[in-house]
Amino acid sequence: MSEGEPRRSIATVCLSGTLEDKLAAAAAAGFDGVEIFENDLVASAHSPAEIGARCRELGLGVDLYQPFRDFEAVPPARLADNLRRAERKFDVMEQLGCDLVLVCSTVSPEAVDDDELAAAQLRELADRAAARGMRVAYEALAWGRFVNTYEHSWRIVRRADHPALGVCLDSFHVLSRGGDPALIRTIPGEKLFFLQLADAPRLDMDVLQWSRHHRLFPGQGSFDLKTFAGNVLEAGYRGPLSLEVFNDVFRQADPGPAAVDAMRSLRLLEDQLGYPVAEPAPALSGYAFTELAADATTARDLTAALAHLGFAHTGDHRSKPVQRWTNGSTHLLVNTNSPAKRTAEGEADPGADRGRAAIGALAVESGDPLRSARRAEAMRSPILARERGPEEAGLAAVAAPDGTDVFFCDSGARDGWRSDFRDTGEPSASRLAITGIDHVSLTQPFDHFDEAALFYRSVLGLEPEEVTEYAAPFGMVRNRGMLDAAGSVRIALNGTLVRRGQWAPAVRDPQHVAFACADVLEAATALRADGAPVLRIPDNYYDDLDARFGLDPELLGQLRAHSVLYDRDARGEFLHVFTELFGDRVFFELVQRIGGYAGYGVANAPVRMAAHRRQRAAS
Amino acid sequence: MSEGEPRRSIATVCLSGTLEDKLAAAAAAGFDGVEIFENDLVASAHSPAEIGARCRELGLGVDLYQPFRDFEAVPPARLADNLRRAERKFDVMEQLGCDLVLVCSTVSPEAVDDDELAAAQLRELADRAAARGMRVAYEALAWGRFVNTYEHSWRIVRRADHPALGVCLDSFHVLSRGGDPALIRTIPGEKLFFLQLADAPRLDMDVLQWSRHHRLFPGQGSFDLKTFAGNVLEAGYRGPLSLEVFNDVFRQADPGPAAVDAMRSLRLLEDQLGYPVAEPAPALSGYAFTELAADATTARDLTAALAHLGFAHTGDHRSKPVQRWTNGSTHLLVNTNSPAKRTAEGEADPGADRGRAAIGALAVESGDPLRSARRAEAMRSPILARERGPEEAGLAAVAAPDGTDVFFCDSGARDGWRSDFRDTGEPSASRLAITGIDHVSLTQPFDHFDEAALFYRSVLGLEPEEVTEYAAPFGMVRNRGMLDAAGSVRIALNGTLVRRGQWAPAVRDPQHVAFACADVLEAATALRADGAPVLRIPDNYYDDLDARFGLDPELLGQLRAHSVLYDRDARGEFLHVFTELFGDRVFFELVQRIGGYAGYGVANAPVRMAAHRRQRAAS
Repeated sequence: MSEGEPRRSIATVCLSGTLEDKLAAAAAAGFDGVEIFENDLVASAHSPAEIGARCRELGLGVDLYQPFRDFEAVPPARLADNLRRAERKFDVMEQLGCDLVLVCSTVSPEAVDDDELAAAQLRELADRAAARGMRVAYEALAWGRFVNTYEHSWRIVRRADHPALGVCLDSFHVLSRGGDPALIRTIPGEKLFFLQLADAPRLDMDVLQWSRHHRLFPGQGSFDLKTFAGNVLEAGYRGPLSLEVFNDVFRQADPGPAAVDAMRSLRLLEDQLGYPVAEPAPALSGYAFTELAADATTARDLTAALAHLGFAHTGDHRSKPVQRWTNGSTHLLVNTNSPAKRTAEGEADPGADRGRAAIGALAVESGDPLRSARRAEAMRSPILARERGPEEAGLAAVAAPDGTDVFFCDSGARDGWRSDFRDTGEPSASRLAITGIDHVSLTQPFDHFDEAALFYRSVLGLEPEEVTEYAAPFGMVRNRGMLDAAGSVRIALNGTLVRRGQWAPAVRDPQHVAFACADVLEAATALRADGAPVLRIPDNYYDDLDARFGLDPELLGQLRAHSVLYDRDARGEFLHVFTELFGDRVFFELVQRIGGYAGYGVANAPVRMAAHRRQRAAS
Repeated sequence: MSEGEPRRSIATVCLSGTLEDKLAAAAAAGFDGVEIFENDLVASAHSPAEIGARCRELGLGVDLYQPFRDFEAVPPARLADNLRRAERKFDVMEQLGCDLVLVCSTVSPEAVDDDELAAAQLRELADRAAARGMRVAYEALAWGRFVNTYEHSWRIVRRADHPALGVCLDSFHVLSRGGDPALIRTIPGEKLFFLQLADAPRLDMDVLQWSRHHRLFPGQGSFDLKTFAGNVLEAGYRGPLSLEVFNDVFRQADPGPAAVDAMRSLRLLEDQLGYPVAEPAPALSGYAFTELAADATTARDLTAALAHLGFAHTGDHRSKPVQRWTNGSTHLLVNTNSPAKRTAEGEADPGADRGRAAIGALAVESGDPLRSARRAEAMRSPILARERGPEEAGLAAVAAPDGTDVFFCDSGARDGWRSDFRDTGEPSASRLAITGIDHVSLTQPFDHFDEAALFYRSVLGLEPEEVTEYAAPFGMVRNRGMLDAAGSVRIALNGTLVRRGQWAPAVRDPQHVAFACADVLEAATALRADGAPVLRIPDNYYDDLDARFGLDPELLGQLRAHSVLYDRDARGEFLHVFTELFGDRVFFELVQRIGGYAGYGVANAPVRMAAHRRQRAAS
């Protein structure tokens, strides 16, 4: 923990594995402390004393032991038993070297609605804790039987008035109920004993199930954690920022990367709160290039398609089998050096008999590439080591969660990335009215979706748009756009909600580069005349388009003739055309945004997927 | 469709793939007709006429075209446009050869709350339809803006009073809102134009999201479809029983098996409704045997463990490398003929470096094995072809969705399964008070969980218990017990809610056989004395058990000394002890039910999983 940074903790329940796996992952990701979840300890073969020693060895404090349930507001006969249970927990905590226990507001049918009784019994518990040098943090569960708001838990703590009794705040329990975090500032800082942080998507469902299955790390969901945590800090809280996230996906994921994802989420939040954890992300000004990785055969198909799209082969890398293709100021690199990566690790690949192609790297134009690199490091995305030749640029790159490399470029610099290439001498004209890269669409396995959004948000400073879902031929698909402040860099994250097995033949997780085009209809006309591999869109689509929108017959006829797709939102219109699929998973798109259209044409994505499936079935 | 059986249909939206994939799967599974979901048609390269011809070729009627949205109760200016949209749909239906369109109750902000207007506009629509020989089925969506109950949709249809306008009933829309299906009988049968069937788990969430993601095939969820459909039939409905199931898992699954699962669900429902589709499942009276498949090395470990558990090697198969191990009347077969199957197809296997072991087959004692086989066939589970030698029994077996073979036996018969084995002459005593197989625990991939429950329910006549969920070291786990009427055959289905990637080292989906034991403490004492590979349970577990239950210290000491686990429910107590893991995924358990304990000790499962992980890490 550096000077000026808060203490960072994580509840063991956030991570998958045995307690030993979890502690190792938390320490490796750089956490300062842990909340030990009782069930993790119960299943461990190590005694609490050994676990405590292990934590100290790993540099982890045991900041909280949890949860202790159904303690307060019970009839006197039950109190003795509850105090007996508490003493057993204190025994365990003593061995662990932990002095703070979490008590959740009761859900017991035995409890009564009596704040005075709850306060008196918690006072007695605090007395017992204090006698052993310990403290009690009382938390209002969102589904607590009588106490389910932090205001109520604070009233009881205030009434109990014991120095060893304070409040634990959990952002989920407050924000899921629409609670107002501003009132937190009315609680004295020294009575705020602990702070648990979790984000979540906005879901209209039973709050217990929402909490148990769908929490997310801060920055991945829809909660305003900056305001929430800001209020807690303003109240004078000086304890750890601790993550407590119950999530079905994280619970089954490798705990190593999950702990890094968790740490990144805290650093982004700290950044938002004004802690000096990272320099601000420099302004971006578009894509410098996108790199496709492919085998030699597929690379030939890709470059033939690029030629149709008006790109010229303008450069060759000085030391690697990488070609630069250029149309105006838009650059695509085609790399046949490394086999295209498959990100869906551990699954059989239905496209294995096809050539391989993938988006291997994105390069963004950064106002300050070195600062971008430092920010990435601060956000726990280490700079990748790269081999390079004597004349090559020292490009900084980091790896996104799905394995895509992200480069920070300053194309104007003398030693910019273009100096890595020998010019072929082939001229590059601006053709087909292509003006740049509109967006890059990256398909994520369902268990990397939220992690990927957080990565691009924290490292590049892109802001995520709302998650949309649509039904597609091979499963429900989630789509989330990410956009920089200037609107110059767009990434579309896509992925099926679930996926297992080998169905979805050859088109399971395509990726693509969408080029901005000033006149898609004209470009599509030229592509057709040129015999380009444009994806054929069926008549049924245009009949339906007509039924839905009642388009001008001439426009409809043109769209139909050239396989151009159409969408409309409140702000404008969208024309787009796709190429066929190359290798197992890459294609191109030309898009034209008319007016303020802000989407990605996802309404048309199922039609495109079915068409790619036909292309594959026919070949 | 045989005489006396209803017409069976399925909405294309239930299945994954392109329209062509879906039609092929529906036909192969034996459906009589389909509801064509508009989006599937729009993405198809075949014209509606070609799709209609394809359906006829496949023997499928096009029973419904759907959905037509936001038609009724609009201002007059909008009506013209809506009628234009409708005529375009009628054009498509004409080509398809479909005469029934589904109109959903409006969710449009333009609509007004005016039944008279809705009825008048629907009457006009019905007039247009009738002019083309078509009809309109009006359905109340559970989230319809004004019309969201079937009673309300019927009031409007009655008021419109047009022969080409009737009601479409959807079990989800009615039962999700707690609607009373009894009133359906007040609707004249000829006004019930269509019946859509879907089951669902009971979820407390937004009904639109519940409908869109979590519907299930009948018999897989919690809805009382027998009563619902019974009322519809009593009202005089004679149209198809049609499935309309939106489910994230089915939407991404191979449509072939999914369509069979769908067909099985309809046949079970018809069976419940008294249609002569299948003979009743014969009464069961326990397990005849369970068969483990393993490689030779792992088989040695398994049989050594069985010897510790008091089993003797009593027989050898006449023609295959299969040993019979016996304790009293309990039989385990160990088969080294076929490599143990892995059910999680398409995923890399983290236990591949271990020996392989799996539960290859279950055999139940049936009162009438031939009838069991006929019922299985009727439930779309074909009898497996088997090679057998001249003296071997003609055992009928079917394959469960996870690949486990299920045999129907009559051990008392002269040519029963035991005649396949030559006796070794080794005597079998009843030892360790093992009295039978309490249950077999089968781990299902998350996308086969509901399909498996339906299989055992429909084929064996087991009744499913409630689904429970618990947090385990490598992910949230679902557990569902299945039990026959006599309580003699129990199967526990387990599986993580989601799973991807290679985490959960070596213990990702274990299976086990749990033996009923009259005295687990005594058996565990003997096993320990015998040096058996009993799974070591850590002290922390017993300390926690003491804190939770305050057990008698002597009992607690015995449990701790012999690694016996303990659970309790409202009806009784449960003692159980586990063996270590053999090969990649098989272990044994001894269980003792005291009083009416009805569970499976799932509260202790996480402790067992962590212990198996330790065993693996240490070896």
